[in-house]
Amino acid sequence: MSAILLAIIGWDPKGWDQIFRALAPQRDIRLWPENAGNPESVSYACVWKPPHGMLAEYRNLKAVFSLGAGVDDLLADIELPNVPVVRVVDPDMTMRMTEYVVLHVLTYHRHQRLYDTQQRVRMWHDHEQAPASDVSVGIMGLGELGHAAAVALQRLGFRVHGWSRTQKIIPGVETFYGQIGLEPFLRRTEILVCLLPSTPATRGILNLDTFRRLKFNGAMHGAYLINASRGDMQVDADILVALEDGTLAGATLDVFPVEPLPITSPLWTHNKVTITPHNAAQSSPRAIVSNILRQIDRLEVGMPLEHIVDRRRGY
Amino acid sequence: MSAILLAIIGWDPKGWDQIFRALAPQRDIRLWPENAGNPESVSYACVWKPPHGMLAEYRNLKAVFSLGAGVDDLLADIELPNVPVVRVVDPDMTMRMTEYVVLHVLTYHRHQRLYDTQQRVRMWHDHEQAPASDVSVGIMGLGELGHAAAVALQRLGFRVHGWSRTQKIIPGVETFYGQIGLEPFLRRTEILVCLLPSTPATRGILNLDTFRRLKFNGAMHGAYLINASRGDMQVDADILVALEDGTLAGATLDVFPVEPLPITSPLWTHNKVTITPHNAAQSSPRAIVSNILRQIDRLEVGMPLEHIVDRRRGY
Repeated sequence: MSAILLAIIGWDPKGWDQIFRALAPQRDIRLWPENAGNPESVSYACVWKPPHGMLAEYRNLKAVFSLGAGVDDLLADIELPNVPVVRVVDPDMTMRMTEYVVLHVLTYHRHQRLYDTQQRVRMWHDHEQAPASDVSVGIMGLGELGHAAAVALQRLGFRVHGWSRTQKIIPGVETFYGQIGLEPFLRRTEILVCLLPSTPATRGILNLDTFRRLKFNGAMHGAYLINASRGDMQVDADILVALEDGTLAGATLDVFPVEPLPITSPLWTHNKVTITPHNAAQSSPRAIVSNILRQIDRLEVGMPLEHIVDRRRGY
Repeated sequence: MSAILLAIIGWDPKGWDQIFRALAPQRDIRLWPENAGNPESVSYACVWKPPHGMLAEYRNLKAVFSLGAGVDDLLADIELPNVPVVRVVDPDMTMRMTEYVVLHVLTYHRHQRLYDTQQRVRMWHDHEQAPASDVSVGIMGLGELGHAAAVALQRLGFRVHGWSRTQKIIPGVETFYGQIGLEPFLRRTEILVCLLPSTPATRGILNLDTFRRLKFNGAMHGAYLINASRGDMQVDADILVALEDGTLAGATLDVFPVEPLPITSPLWTHNKVTITPHNAAQSSPRAIVSNILRQIDRLEVGMPLEHIVDRRRGY
């Protein structure tokens, strides 16, 4: 029967259901839990944060498609069926993440927060402005998102270098990898951009010890952090300490260990913190669904799936 | 004797003097007015807003070099000697202008001002985000600065088109020119970026009539203006009217008819206006001086000067 099951928690499931039906009217689309039907006839599960254990009863699954960028929550399900898990890789999402990274790197580089403050008190005063070639941006994570951000920043004239688990080569970008490469990477980083996948190895990596190894940029009054990956990468309390003691001059955070960010968090009102509501790289649902349906079509004519998650490394 | 005269008003002349002396220790450098020496022996004048009439007595001038990007004030001097006037064209300055334009286009596109406001009231709420390919940016002025900004925005995925006095061709960018091209250019522009030179033909071009022809972008709640060229291009009162009646959703202004912007201007405190103190594309003085000295060296071995201003068209 090859039905497609949608199991979506935390996002609007009806909207996704409509898009699947619009783009694949000939398909048997099931919306969990109200309209899940017979589990035996479901071949594909398209999910966002499904309850752990929920997929175990679907014994004829051929693949699980993640509707969002991170698969950490999905892989933490110890009863997850042993079928291919497919990540979202969407050019549209990559473009959006690049926009976010470029916007916030430029905001720091061009002292825009300072000019905003001056405007409020009607102060006309310009500050010395370094060229981008004097500013060193370090990107953690050199997958699709990190690669694209590195290229965009390099084109704007920034000195860009990167760090990843395994060795990556990007023309014009100095790259470091593995535990041994972390120290030299951080030592030359003035603006740290985190685009790592969430894995047991990366959790908590944005901590005080990491921040203290960053390079202090005099013209920017310190180092900056931009985290647009996953909240469990960052230790909020350490960010606050680093901002207070001057290790960090600012932090732009799109993600948090608990989301929505609790109203009691001191990050909300900290004058050196920019908060966005986990929207750095929302893709258009239509683009994601279209990619998933294309992959299902490929699979059914015997072609291999793309962007399968390596469960051992976690992304 | 081939002395170089520096005549600088409004900027720190001593700083420029030091840079000239450091980069050309063998040259006879004169600082007007205190150390101008014999006018007969001056071959080159390097100037920023010199008093009108002041250069008339330098009868042996071979060229006048502008130390800043605009030559409008210089050309308005009816006693300006009839020698080549050379503009600043500096790759470093072009990069800086591109940074400024990209920063402020992305700020609008990504609703960053709205997220800033939400943060102040601890509101976690994301808004629908269009892809850059749904946003149409129009660049007025396709010289070095406009061309570079167009290419950078295009690489980020924006739909970019341009308007200039004479026809320009930029791959992938729809271009319009002349009076006849202005209307279709404005009709498809959602974010208007002004990088025109200041000439009698462009003065006051950023007026209510122009704004009312812009395309209304629903997702961005209107059209946006970014002016980083010259203040006399814009009619401040018209900007305020356009912001009030919803024609414009926001304006980012680096330049003003009177600078510094008077403390009484309502622009300072308007919540849809971003003000920067004419610092979009300050170049490093060292880079400018180095370019000027290179040109003087070229001239003295019989090579032609580059970037000579066409006095009739005004840039």
